[in-house]
Parts: sequence; structure tokens; C-alpha cells
Amino acid sequence: MPAILGQNQYGKAEVRIVRLDRATPTHRVKDLNVSVALRGDLADTHLTGDNSKVLTTDATKNTVYALAKKHGIDSTEAFGLLLARHFVDDVPQVREARIRLEEYHWDRIPRNASRSRFVGADEIAHSFVRNGTETRTAQITYNAEQGAEVLSGIQDLVVMNSTDSEFWGFYRDEYTTLKETRDRILATQVTARWRHNRDDLADWDRAYADTRRHLLEAFSETYSYALQQTLYQMGARVIEHRPDIDEVRLSLPNKHHFEVDLEPFGMKNGNEVFYAADRPYGLIEGTILRDGAEPRIPVD
Amino acid sequence: MPAILGQNQYGKAEVRIVRLDRATPTHRVKDLNVSVALRGDLADTHLTGDNSKVLTTDATKNTVYALAKKHGIDSTEAFGLLLARHFVDDVPQVREARIRLEEYHWDRIPRNASRSRFVGADEIAHSFVRNGTETRTAQITYNAEQGAEVLSGIQDLVVMNSTDSEFWGFYRDEYTTLKETRDRILATQVTARWRHNRDDLADWDRAYADTRRHLLEAFSETYSYALQQTLYQMGARVIEHRPDIDEVRLSLPNKHHFEVDLEPFGMKNGNEVFYAADRPYGLIEGTILRDGAEPRIPVD
Amino acid sequence: MPAILGQNQYGKAEVRIVRLDRATPTHRVKDLNVSVALRGDLADTHLTGDNSKVLTTDATKNTVYALAKKHGIDSTEAFGLLLARHFVDDVPQVREARIRLEEYHWDRIPRNASRSRFVGADEIAHSFVRNGTETRTAQITYNAEQGAEVLSGIQDLVVMNSTDSEFWGFYRDEYTTLKETRDRILATQVTARWRHNRDDLADWDRAYADTRRHLLEAFSETYSYALQQTLYQMGARVIEHRPDIDEVRLSLPNKHHFEVDLEPFGMKNGNEVFYAADRPYGLIEGTILRDGAEPRIPVD
Amino acid sequence: MPAILGQNQYGKAEVRIVRLDRATPTHRVKDLNVSVALRGDLADTHLTGDNSKVLTTDATKNTVYALAKKHGIDSTEAFGLLLARHFVDDVPQVREARIRLEEYHWDRIPRNASRSRFVGADEIAHSFVRNGTETRTAQITYNAEQGAEVLSGIQDLVVMNSTDSEFWGFYRDEYTTLKETRDRILATQVTARWRHNRDDLADWDRAYADTRRHLLEAFSETYSYALQQTLYQMGARVIEHRPDIDEVRLSLPNKHHFEVDLEPFGMKNGNEVFYAADRPYGLIEGTILRDGAEPRIPVD
Repeated sequence: MPAILGQNQYGKAEVRIVRLDRATPTHRVKDLNVSVALRGDLADTHLTGDNSKVLTTDATKNTVYALAKKHGIDSTEAFGLLLARHFVDDVPQVREARIRLEEYHWDRIPRNASRSRFVGADEIAHSFVRNGTETRTAQITYNAEQGAEVLSGIQDLVVMNSTDSEFWGFYRDEYTTLKETRDRILATQVTARWRHNRDDLADWDRAYADTRRHLLEAFSETYSYALQQTLYQMGARVIEHRPDIDEVRLSLPNKHHFEVDLEPFGMKNGNEVFYAADRPYGLIEGTILRDGAEPRIPVD
Repeated sequence: MPAILGQNQYGKAEVRIVRLDRATPTHRVKDLNVSVALRGDLADTHLTGDNSKVLTTDATKNTVYALAKKHGIDSTEAFGLLLARHFVDDVPQVREARIRLEEYHWDRIPRNASRSRFVGADEIAHSFVRNGTETRTAQITYNAEQGAEVLSGIQDLVVMNSTDSEFWGFYRDEYTTLKETRDRILATQVTARWRHNRDDLADWDRAYADTRRHLLEAFSETYSYALQQTLYQMGARVIEHRPDIDEVRLSLPNKHHFEVDLEPFGMKNGNEVFYAADRPYGLIEGTILRDGAEPRIPVD
Repeated sequence: MPAILGQNQYGKAEVRIVRLDRATPTHRVKDLNVSVALRGDLADTHLTGDNSKVLTTDATKNTVYALAKKHGIDSTEAFGLLLARHFVDDVPQVREARIRLEEYHWDRIPRNASRSRFVGADEIAHSFVRNGTETRTAQITYNAEQGAEVLSGIQDLVVMNSTDSEFWGFYRDEYTTLKETRDRILATQVTARWRHNRDDLADWDRAYADTRRHLLEAFSETYSYALQQTLYQMGARVIEHRPDIDEVRLSLPNKHHFEVDLEPFGMKNGNEVFYAADRPYGLIEGTILRDGAEPRIPVD
Repeated sequence: MPAILGQNQYGKAEVRIVRLDRATPTHRVKDLNVSVALRGDLADTHLTGDNSKVLTTDATKNTVYALAKKHGIDSTEAFGLLLARHFVDDVPQVREARIRLEEYHWDRIPRNASRSRFVGADEIAHSFVRNGTETRTAQITYNAEQGAEVLSGIQDLVVMNSTDSEFWGFYRDEYTTLKETRDRILATQVTARWRHNRDDLADWDRAYADTRRHLLEAFSETYSYALQQTLYQMGARVIEHRPDIDEVRLSLPNKHHFEVDLEPFGMKNGNEVFYAADRPYGLIEGTILRDGAEPRIPVD
């Protein structure tokens, strides 16, 4: 038989968990989508169907729920670390665990001041509205030898600058017909992942909020001659301000907004009316590293 | 030939338009998805392929862009009314137009106070971040005889009460196994449409914001014994507070959050850990009318 | 209180059921997505939260599974009729039931002749591959007074004629810039629903296959001057050949394929290279009726 | 400045192209989604916004269309190789190109024998229906030093064995509650990629069809004690029969079909009625290698 088994992993994907903290009448909610991948001594099940070393994916799902009950969910990253360490430390045949998490954000439904005579102060404490197109992400990889690697991230953060973007002076070959522009809409749907150089941050939520803010500010403050330039500024801003982060990987689709040609109708557009295109789109991807750091976020 | 032509309509669907208002350095953005359906004297194209009465869907698309330039987009409803009247009044063979619009909301990217010495006061004026999973909708139907009917709406507004919801005392047949509960999560993804009894509101944006607030408040303030009860309260609250609205149609999927059974692991859950299910889901739909008003929003 | 309760309905949506028929070693599979909506005496739950007349949506889900076991699933329509009659006939407070069903098609994995010495004749009898982008649909509405109405249908049937389509001679207004064409790709994603004038067909599967064939043949055989013309031919063909069908409603998005302008690169395209666009798209909708029949399929 | 630029790439993603071959009245159609990523001397645009080495993504799009016209599309892989070599060989600052392609399959609409007196033999030659939920994929990576690497693949191939699958004898920890089974449905949605050890195959279409057949046959013929075992058999079968393939990577979500508990209704299920679940799902991933080959398909 010429075939041999290479890298392999398995686990339960997309375990949807909502964890309420009801310690006070003002409930707190954590809403996560958790995916577990386990790596280890798994040749037998592949080669002979002997499952004696297979922790079932059903058990990995149960573990997500049970550990959430036992320890609560302090932050996305902390919960991922907890899960990863459990699988590696407590299940002998598991050598490495990779936990991926998505977190969905909920706001409290605001109580309207003018109607407060009808609404008790505590009632609004358990009402929420989903907020944001964006999703917070984390990936924890842990094995006993190398410890934990923490990637935090964000996806579907959609941003737009309605001016302060130019694009000209580009290379021209025989298939280049694009016109230069000194004023365009620059819009993108940010997917970012950043690698922490430590796994013991005191406040992961604050680190996330802070990094998100740097990404937004760098996007909005960069006078842009290319989406690549904006990408670099976004990553560099994070590296500059966050000593705990060594690497940022950004994937920025250029969500083209084409100025509609209104000349046939006797009008000059003047950068006011745009067609927002779906496909195709430019896709700009890049890694920004702290000087001296090794790149470890995989290139897709 | 036993076949005859019945109701028919056509037009361009999903015209994605971004309209900037650049009158001041602080840009305003309107981001819409517009679908046009025209009804009228269209038998020839169906029966013989004679297109002499067919306004092309390409022209309906161009019209969306051209009228947006000429008149700006004051509000979703106002723009829909403008389009509908144009098609009916200016294209002889069109007897009725139905315009559907979706609006996506953008927030301004906030400038961080602590960094304001680096950021000019005007720079942030053209930077935006997409906000909200929810979409604002409108449907305008216009013909010369009956005038305009304006349906406003919202979709994908996801809300949750983490307590103050019970479900018990229900009918039992041979296939009923559900346990009663005195405390559960109540979560839904609101799709609402409401019919205005006039087409000349001074401020459609305010009407929308106000109606949205009533829906949210009724959801959060109702101590619920059934999602049907919550549905009724949401609709009735709008009818009560908005004299310009005669009818509300709500579609509320019951986004089930099942309490995970942790007994096998020696734990009592206590309504803290939930499995958020996708399918199947309960689907509760209903219309609330102003007393004396005729129902006109179609039942799906 | 100025608000009153109008039309309302509820039930379990998207019950995913796979029903195996294992009567012989050659298994048969039915794969359905079932949505139940019940209408009746439901004011109490809306107005007071009294659920004593509410058959839970959980019980409607159980009913789908239990009746599938008890009676098997002979066809999509027959199963829908069975469910609808059960809810109306056996649950006193339910006056009308509407069952919507989607069916996904599976083919048997073919056994390769050349390898048959390794494969037992019976082994392939239980191996399947999902086939087709298209989905078969049905909607059964039943109440005791009017009996059953059966709508069958298809969705996501994607078809294309690579020639024999023209578009010219259309109406021109000030916003019309489209060029005429004597040869274009005509492509659409068919959504069709047809109404049977009886509920006791002997073979619903054959009726479906036959109607699908007529739709496909009419699409491919019509030399088209407008997608409207093709739409009419598709519906008329069904009415003509199926005496059990009185009404056909078609929704045909014009999936535009734009000929790419290759002149800047010194090439003439010649209708060989096309850009397949997503949005916007023309949307052509219409009903074809048997002469004398009343239209009953709702217009969206 | 502590930040430095790491790996980066860019290009146009999701260029939707339909290429007709009209050489004979029997048209042939190729329907592709092409994504281009270019790597090379791109530091300037990131660091200073100097675009003089940036081939615009618009030009990469034009190139896809122009080369499709000039050379036709013989196969997905051949077209990807053509594009990759063009960008690296003809654009000086591009050092490596990675082309990803998806191909959608169309069948000819069959002519019905009984109606052939109405249908000319050539008419059906240009009518097509989209077939299959599955998508054929390819990824070509090319640089001048190492030449071309060709990964072919398939995604969304949904398969099911309705018996001949067991799962028992697995590892048990404190969170394991799963019951053993000696008969279950095994269903998955295959994503597979395989690496060719040469880039000069005479017939890529035949290689694809042959590999697809081996995957299907191994899935259906394996009496399975674990999805891992089925995965291994699928990959090994390909390695065994295709000397041109050195590596196969499979990602197999376990699309759980849970036997519905009908005991409360006085029925025994007998593996006939199943609930098809969406989330969570087991996810089994693995690489099968030819003995002696290096793994090069990235692990996600």
C-alpha cells in the first residue's frame, strides 16, 4: 500500500453557547461559537477503525458546556485557553488542541428616560439587542512543549472613507485600462488577526477594544494612495501601541464603489452617486511584524 | 390555446446605490438596495415578444441613479415615493409601481479624545463604520387612482430577554412532550412592517426611529407567557403611540435557547448555560390593526 | 386600547427530516424540510398569555416525525396533505393548516462496471450523492370548509440558452441607454409554483417530473425576444399539457451575462467571453392561468 | 518604528467568467470563478503609496477575460497555469502568482424523444441546466524557480450511506455520554484537495472525473467504524490509483443524522426517521500521502 497517514485532527465545530451570568439582577451575556480541533495519537481510528483513543466529538461539545458552567466565561481568549489546556492536560492521547471562537456582541436595550415612571430600574437589566455586523474571533493553540499561542481577531468590520483616497501612478501593461483617480471612496470589510506574545493578559476584553480602536483610527486617519498603504498603517499602528502583539495579518477586500456615469443624462456626478459592487473585488492581504519577530500566522 | 396571461410585473432588482451628500465637509451617506417592479400594459412582450412598451430594466436602474443625483435622498421612504411617482406619471404604459428599499446604517468612526492633538477636527468627517445587523426597509406602491401606500419596516433586529419569560398551561395532545417552564430565555429576530395612513410625513427618519424604539421597549418590558403575547404587545404599542400607523405585521421566529442538561456531569444548570439552536424554530406571525382599519399588508 | 388582533398563525418552521424506507436492502430516502403554520382560535394567547389552546410548536415538530414513521412518506405533496388534515381534523381549535415542504434530491452512487468484481451487488443500495442545485417545493393549505389546495413548485433551477435570444425594439425614455442586441445569453434561476385543481393525484412524483420537463423544454425551445415571452411560454406549456394544473406563477431573475469589451486589447469578442453579473438583475414575474380559472397564488 | 512588512499579496478575487466555445452549432460552456493573488516587489505601495510597481487588480481582471478569448479554456487547471505563467513571466515585478478557480458544471437540457418532431436536432445544442451542488476547484501556484504546483479539488460533494456505519469502543472521560451504535447514517459534505506531482497532464478533465469517482467509490464501499477510517480509505484509494497524485487533504464534516426518539408516541424507530442537524457537527480532517512524499497542502 503506497499511502500513509499525514497530519490529522478532529473535534466538534460550531458549538453555539450562550452563557448567562445571573450573579446580580443585571445579567451579563456571553454568546459564542466554539470549534475544537484535537491532534494526537489517532492513527488507529484511521487505519483500523479502532476508536479506543477517540474522545468523541460529542464529549468535546459537552466539555464546552460543562467548563462554561464550572468556570464561567471571563473572556473569549480566557475560555479558549481553559478549553485547550483541559484537552491536552486531561486527555492523555491528545497532544495539541486548537480552539477557535467567535463572539457576538449584545447591547443592553436602553430604557427611555421619558417613560421611566412605567419602567422599574431593574427590568431593563435582562434585555439585549444584537449589535454590529462584526464578529470578534480568537484562536488558541496549545501543547505541553510550546505552551499556548493566542491569536485574537475581528471579522466583518465594514468601514468606509468617503474621500481622502487617491489611486494613480500605477504600472501599465497591455491589459491596463483603469483611469487614475484623485478622489474615490475607499471601503473594505476588515478581517484581522493578531498574535499576542504572551498568554497571561490581565484583561483580554480591553486588549481587544484597544486594538479595534487602533485599526479604526488608522483606517480613518490615513490619507491613502493605495489600500496597501492603509493596510500597512493599520497593522503598524497596532504593533506600535500594543507591546503584547508581535504580528498582525490583515485581509482587506477592496469593496469597489464605482462613480456612476451620469453624462448621458446631462449631469455631472461629482463623486456623489456610486454603484456599490459585489464581485469581483480587489483583495489586499499582508502581515505586519514587530521587528525581530517570526511570522507565525499562516498565509492563506 | 387554453392559457391566458394573469398578473405580471417586472423591473430591476437590487440596485445598490451609495449617495454621498458632500454639501459640507461633514459628509452624509445613504446606502440603499433598491428594487423596482412595474405593472401596466405589458401583454405584448409576453405574447408576441413585441417590446415597444417595455421600459428596460436597465433604464429603471439608470433612473434610480439619476433621480438620486438630481434630488438627493432625503429618506428611504421619500426616495421610494419619488421613484414610484416618476415611473407612473412619466412612463405612459406603467399603471403601478412598487419600490422596495433596504437601508444599511453607517455610524461615524469616533475620534478618540486622548488623541485629538493628532487628529484635525474635520478629518473624521468622512469616515464610517457599518453598524447593526438590522436593516431598515420600505415598500412604496403607487398608482394614479389610489395614490401611494407606504409600508415601513425593519428586519434582522435580534433581541433577547434573559428572563421574565414563562411558557406553561399549553394544550396537550398525544404528540406533546414539552416540559413547562417558569423561566426561559426569549429571543427572536424581528421582521416588522407597518403601514402608514398617510404619505406626507414631515420626517420619515424620526418615524422610523420612534417605531423601532416602541418595538424594542415593548419587547423588553413585556413579562411574557407566550411569544404571541409579546408579539401583540409590540404591535399594539406602535398603534397606540403612532397615529400615522394603522397596521403592523410581525414575524417572530422563536430562536430557541435550550438549557443544557448538566446533570450527567454532577452539575445543576440553573438557567446559566444554553444551547442556541438554529433549526427548527417556532415561527409566530400576526397582524395588529387600528380598530376600524382594513388589513392590507399581505399574509405570507 | 385602539389596537385589535388581525390575521395570525404559528407553528414550527424548518423541521429537517430524513425518512429511510428500509423495506428492502435497496434503501429509499426522502429528505425534507417541513414548515407548519396553524390558524384558528388563538386570540387568548395573544391577548392574555393564556396558552390553553396552543398546540406547542414542539408538538407540531413531533407530529412530523411520528406521522412520517407511521405512514411513510410517499411523496412530498401526499405527506403535506396528511399533516394538514391531521392538524385540522384532530386538533379542535385549529381551523386551517398550511404546510410548506422542500425536498432535496439524492441519486444513488453508481457502481463502476469495471470494478464490479470487488463490489457486491447489494452494497451500493444504500449509498447516495446529493444532486442538483434545485429544490422541489410544495405548499398544502387545508381547512374543513374548502378542502385542500395543493401548490407544487421548484426553485433554484438554473438554466441558460447560449443563443437564440434577442432584445430590441424596446421603449426609450430619457434614461434609456441600453444597446439593442440580436444575440445574447439568456439565463435565469427559475422559481415556479403551480396550482393543482385536485388533491387526489395518483402519482405526485410523476406530475412533478412531467411539469419540470415541460418548463425545461419550453425554456430551451423558445426563440426569445424577451424573457417575458419565455416566461409566458413556460407557463402556457404546463397549462396546455397538464389538465390537473390551473395556474402557474413564475419568478425569473434575468441573470445578466454581459459581453466583455475586448476592443482595448485589439480583439473582437464575438459573443464568446461574458461577465456573469450578480446584482442588479432584471426580475420578471408573471402568472399564467387556464382560461376561466381564478388566480389564487399570491403575488409577492 | 518597530513595525516591518511581512508576507503580502494582492489581486482581483472572484472574477466570474463564462466562456462559450461556438466553433460548432453545439456550443460548449465553461463557467468559472477566478481569483488572482500576486506576490513580488511590492514594498513601496505599502510603505509610501508609490504604485509604480502595482499591476492594478482591474488589469488582472482584464487579463482573465483577454486570455480566455485568445486561448480558450481547455480545462480549469490548464487555464490557471496559463494565467499564472503570464503574470510571472510577463510582469517583471511579479515573482509568484497563485490562481484559484472554481468551476460550475452545466448539463445539456435533454431533448425528449417523444417530442422530437417539434425540435430540430441543433436547437438543444445551446441549452443548459446547472447541475450539482458540488464545485470543482483548482489552485495553481507558480514561480520561475520552483515551477508550478497544481492542486485540484472538489467541494460541497454531499454523500450519505444509510447503513454500514458503526461507532463504538471509543474513549470515555467524565464528559462522555454518547451511546454506542452498530448502525447509523454516515453523511458528509466532502471538501478534498489533491496535489499533482506534474503540471503537464494531457487531460485534466479526465483526471478530475477519475479522482471524483475514486472518492465516491471509497466512500460507498467502506464499511465504516469511524469517519476517520472512511477518510483514510478515500485518500488512500486516490493515491493507489493515480500515480500523478502525491497528496490528498480531506475535510469531512460529520453531518449528524440523529434517530428520533419515538418511544413517547408508542413507536420504535428502527433507524427509519432521522433529524438532520446543522450545528454543531463533528469535523474530521486529514492528509493522505504517497509514501516518501512531502506534505505541501496547508493545514487549516
